[in-house]
Amino acid sequence: MSQMRSTVLLLAAVVAGCGTARTSNEAPMPAPAPAAARAEAMPAAPAAPASSYDTIRARPFDTGRMWTFDVPPLDHFQRTYGFRPTQQWLDNVRLSVVRFATWCSASFVSPEGLLLTNHHCGVPTLDPVQRAGENLLTNGFISRTRAEERRVPDLFVEQLVSIEDVTERVAASMGQDGSQEERQARQMAVRREMERPDSANRMRYQVVEFYNGGRYSRYGYKRFDDVRLVFAPEQGIAFFGGDPDNFNYPRYNLDMALYRVYDENGRPYRPANYLRWSAAGAREGDPVFVVGNPGTTQRQLTNAQLQYLRDVSQPAQLAVLNAQRTSIQRIGQADAARGLELRDNLFSIENSIKAITGRRAGALDPALFARKVDWERRFRAAVQGDPARAARYGAAWDSITAFQAERRALAPGLLFNAYLNSGPLGQAMALVRAAGGEAQFRTAAGAPLTAARGEQVIELSELLRVAQRNVPQDSLLRLVLAGRTPDEAATQIVSSYTLADTAARRQLLAGGAAAVQASTDPVVALARQVAPLVMARQRAMAAINVRETAQRNLLGRAFYEVYGTDVPPDATFTLRIADGVVKGYEANGTIMPWKTTYYGLYNRAYGFDQKTSDFDLPPRWETPPAGLRLETPFNFVSTNDIIGGNSGSPMINRDAEVVGLIFDGNLQSLPGNFIFDETQNRTISVHSAGILEALRTAYRAQRLVDELVPPARR
Amino acid sequence: MSQMRSTVLLLAAVVAGCGTARTSNEAPMPAPAPAAARAEAMPAAPAAPASSYDTIRARPFDTGRMWTFDVPPLDHFQRTYGFRPTQQWLDNVRLSVVRFATWCSASFVSPEGLLLTNHHCGVPTLDPVQRAGENLLTNGFISRTRAEERRVPDLFVEQLVSIEDVTERVAASMGQDGSQEERQARQMAVRREMERPDSANRMRYQVVEFYNGGRYSRYGYKRFDDVRLVFAPEQGIAFFGGDPDNFNYPRYNLDMALYRVYDENGRPYRPANYLRWSAAGAREGDPVFVVGNPGTTQRQLTNAQLQYLRDVSQPAQLAVLNAQRTSIQRIGQADAARGLELRDNLFSIENSIKAITGRRAGALDPALFARKVDWERRFRAAVQGDPARAARYGAAWDSITAFQAERRALAPGLLFNAYLNSGPLGQAMALVRAAGGEAQFRTAAGAPLTAARGEQVIELSELLRVAQRNVPQDSLLRLVLAGRTPDEAATQIVSSYTLADTAARRQLLAGGAAAVQASTDPVVALARQVAPLVMARQRAMAAINVRETAQRNLLGRAFYEVYGTDVPPDATFTLRIADGVVKGYEANGTIMPWKTTYYGLYNRAYGFDQKTSDFDLPPRWETPPAGLRLETPFNFVSTNDIIGGNSGSPMINRDAEVVGLIFDGNLQSLPGNFIFDETQNRTISVHSAGILEALRTAYRAQRLVDELVPPARR
Repeated sequence: MSQMRSTVLLLAAVVAGCGTARTSNEAPMPAPAPAAARAEAMPAAPAAPASSYDTIRARPFDTGRMWTFDVPPLDHFQRTYGFRPTQQWLDNVRLSVVRFATWCSASFVSPEGLLLTNHHCGVPTLDPVQRAGENLLTNGFISRTRAEERRVPDLFVEQLVSIEDVTERVAASMGQDGSQEERQARQMAVRREMERPDSANRMRYQVVEFYNGGRYSRYGYKRFDDVRLVFAPEQGIAFFGGDPDNFNYPRYNLDMALYRVYDENGRPYRPANYLRWSAAGAREGDPVFVVGNPGTTQRQLTNAQLQYLRDVSQPAQLAVLNAQRTSIQRIGQADAARGLELRDNLFSIENSIKAITGRRAGALDPALFARKVDWERRFRAAVQGDPARAARYGAAWDSITAFQAERRALAPGLLFNAYLNSGPLGQAMALVRAAGGEAQFRTAAGAPLTAARGEQVIELSELLRVAQRNVPQDSLLRLVLAGRTPDEAATQIVSSYTLADTAARRQLLAGGAAAVQASTDPVVALARQVAPLVMARQRAMAAINVRETAQRNLLGRAFYEVYGTDVPPDATFTLRIADGVVKGYEANGTIMPWKTTYYGLYNRAYGFDQKTSDFDLPPRWETPPAGLRLETPFNFVSTNDIIGGNSGSPMINRDAEVVGLIFDGNLQSLPGNFIFDETQNRTISVHSAGILEALRTAYRAQRLVDELVPPARR
Repeated sequence: MSQMRSTVLLLAAVVAGCGTARTSNEAPMPAPAPAAARAEAMPAAPAAPASSYDTIRARPFDTGRMWTFDVPPLDHFQRTYGFRPTQQWLDNVRLSVVRFATWCSASFVSPEGLLLTNHHCGVPTLDPVQRAGENLLTNGFISRTRAEERRVPDLFVEQLVSIEDVTERVAASMGQDGSQEERQARQMAVRREMERPDSANRMRYQVVEFYNGGRYSRYGYKRFDDVRLVFAPEQGIAFFGGDPDNFNYPRYNLDMALYRVYDENGRPYRPANYLRWSAAGAREGDPVFVVGNPGTTQRQLTNAQLQYLRDVSQPAQLAVLNAQRTSIQRIGQADAARGLELRDNLFSIENSIKAITGRRAGALDPALFARKVDWERRFRAAVQGDPARAARYGAAWDSITAFQAERRALAPGLLFNAYLNSGPLGQAMALVRAAGGEAQFRTAAGAPLTAARGEQVIELSELLRVAQRNVPQDSLLRLVLAGRTPDEAATQIVSSYTLADTAARRQLLAGGAAAVQASTDPVVALARQVAPLVMARQRAMAAINVRETAQRNLLGRAFYEVYGTDVPPDATFTLRIADGVVKGYEANGTIMPWKTTYYGLYNRAYGFDQKTSDFDLPPRWETPPAGLRLETPFNFVSTNDIIGGNSGSPMINRDAEVVGLIFDGNLQSLPGNFIFDETQNRTISVHSAGILEALRTAYRAQRLVDELVPPARR
């Protein structure tokens, strides 16, 4: 089995969502204004509480605190924490932290290549190393010797070893001549050239676009591809509380795992840079830094774009997700064992519902939205106040607003189209499109149907039902329903399908467009009717995306020109350092403490009598392990700015010691996709002392404790 | 010192608020309809989730489940729990539970008169029995022998020994002749006669009005006035979590105290009825019953009345309370020691802010409000559907709606008048009104000023400021400000006051109206100008109240006629039995467990490093007492319907055993003043096993453990 969680899923959802396509620039990039000439990037907070939303002002750090290592905010650190990291400090932490495969972050925590990340980042690596009779997800994995460490096939980590500002080169590459397409092509060629890997040195390169094209850097990564699993706790303690406690605090999760990087000769890699472990760990009020790779944020969205997300796209996503949840619940009600098998799918859906609901709640919060409004007003005024800038960028906001109206006209039919991907109809659609020359549909067209017919009917009918409730007049939906109720249509589509057999379908596909065109299968016949209409809609939406991205690039450059590097760019799944403070917060009518303890784990487990699966502790933890000091800090919160992709990032103190391991954000952090609000947005970490305590008592993994904190350092 | 808390304060606030004045009836009471003819009192919940607020329906028990012992809902209990209490069972629990002074409930829990109530109910009794050098609030009180039990002066409890339906007699007393005033006077005379105490038998009587006059009962109480303090824990464990955790769950409070009732001969009273203690206590899913005296609910409010509360009166209350909080905070910032002295005042204000905010949040919740709308629609349809009823009651809703418009015109000036009660101006006002013949102002006029001048200025200026922000054009405010800023006016009023000396003021008052009229004190001069205007406004508001109450009485009778006793009456601080189930709930994005444990107490204390006063455990509890089983249930939640006044009520099982002691509701229970919503409204109790565990280990009070659970019963 393979299950991915929480921030990982969140990242995937964001990446799949709107606003991530990037095109090259249309005009040469202007240099950022000198610091003195910049507009006020961080307006002071209003002195008095606002009595109406009009008086609410943008605040410092509304666009976050995910700083790049290109231009670390030394003055901000100095001002805020009295701490000015040296270049050596910065290099050390940069080289100590890596990208973990394509979805997480991790850090070197010993001189012998021990690597720390989250358990939920490691979940996809358990299945590939699992042996007959084992269940590593349920029972965990402890290697008692180095020999027992298990290499994970295809797992790799990447260390950022070089950073080069290539803004000028990328800008120059476009030239001034030729059509926009020619100029774009020239730029892409230059970027591709810069990204050519250096296989001999195991180096790969990435040209990273910041500020939607305001700035470019060439990042060089050293890649390690012998990574072995050292330790993973049981899912029941790593993800204690399950979906209910997901995105929540107070929290009690041992969401950590250990790997080891080996060199080309199969010996433990000895990194020149690694983070030392703080046995005492984070304390309230400490300045702390998260170093890792946040995936995607959308903090440069215009208000019109945010409104579109909030009012059109998120409600539709939620409606479809709810229909999918209903399907699985109906299946589980009919067949409890099958329901258990689908538990991970259900969790993944519930995770998305919780995440999107939280983000939307932020966009619906009039006070948060008012801050965005003021932020845009200030930015716009700074552009309009300068005739040259106004001429270059001034029209972009209105253009983007106009695009949202175009989207609103097109979106509903597309947003409620999920029934076209479901079961036999989904296969038939893939078949028709693959035969029509769209290669990306070949895999889906040839894949087996995993659900039984009854389940196919349930899923399809629920998806048709949600479409019928929301877009009853949609031409495409009417074509599929053909006057039938959702239940009738689903039943007939599933029962009339003649191509459930994978071999038959592959054979048909091998016959090419003519064979598919000639197929007498009624579902394929329906797909042939439907496909051209869907493609036309998708092309129309894609065309809007291209034009809108060009306008967004303009705004990106305007933003960089006005504010420069005083404000960090949106997240790009590249290395950042995010500063913050260990600090509780007010919520739910009371105060959330800065930390939890092992006492709290048992309070929550006993509170539910350890009866429900989400709160059922694994055998090792059922009662407190001998010697466990219950008052040891377990999880804690801080004001650092993180997002999906950051999972696995170490939390360090000013001595570059590991004081914690981030693994989630609280519910109030979900609006962080568009605004960072440090009053309530909190990063949740496993405490470094809590990790040692667990390794020492529950797992008796003294070998690892000694490696993390050598006896000489105690 | 004396400090009252939580539900006690809540009760006081409700009683002081709107909607409790009652007048006698204007017409003879009709008998309730026979059960078969009654309108559907408990509509079924809607089958599908509502897609818009219009489709939201009232639900069974929206008006609550606080049943009287006059007509216990035996069929409902049978249907819901398969449990039909006998008359003997009902008599036993009724006689086992008492009113504790004028603010709480309590129960007999041993054959030797041991009485259980909440610590917060007992707080006002600590000061009167405290001896030199003691601090019972901080350090608690444990009597090691009976001889050490301390009689509390003036403390009494009342046991409900007789119930008599006097609806007919009250109705007949009015007669048909004479003016409305004459008929009211006759009725009041009859009620007073029925309420005459029987001192020889230590009996007092109360005619209780249910359904705003739909039904009357004569309750006979046996009074006990030798009540001695036996045990009170430290405030730090009884009220662990302070204001932040007040109205919250999960919770960790040992909010209990023990008293003993003594007979006229100074011997422990041996009650014929008492509740046995369940050592195991409540379990998830158990049907449980709260027996006690809920103070006041307003569930019969019309939508217009509720809207007035929500949109006019509650926002004004909150604004004034916030101004008062700001005053105390400013005083505390200037003088930390004084701030500490004012901590109880601050808490009382914060408690009110939290309570009113929660109630208002309920009224602002569109789904809850929609249920009220549907509830009223159904009730109104049932009245309008019957010509006789329509003629008698049909106009009441519109009349009440019209009164709200009158209130809205008058209210703002009155609601922001708090500055007239503050410091010197408040004294001068009391002086003028007392001299004018209003005796109820004499005490205030002669009382000393407790705050220093600086504090008087702060308070007055904050109250003037909030008035100026909200009712800048108010004629009365303009008279007081006289063109000055709030700070200037406050400074000048306080500094020009010549009557701070109590003796001087009493002398002036002794001189009567003429002396006060002749006073040259500038603040008295201002009060002479202001007082007639205030009195005129108050008279106008009182006149609305009288007319509105008459209409509310009509609706009360209509309600009783339509629904009869299928729906319980609003709370009246008389004995009720409220049924429910031990059950967690969903909130804050996760699941709240049905219970907490002592593990959780330590998690929360260590979470704040035991550093802030709210989470600082008393010495006895700083680390777990020897032998304490941390997994013992400590607090728990259930779906019972309670409100201020219920504090101290036992929670019993169907064997009439004490399984818990209620002490608070969760935040989601606050809208319970106008609607009962069992999806989230929860009663919070101390678990009976948790109490035993604390007595046994932390307090080593084996004498009390043995009395609660005699060794023979273990």
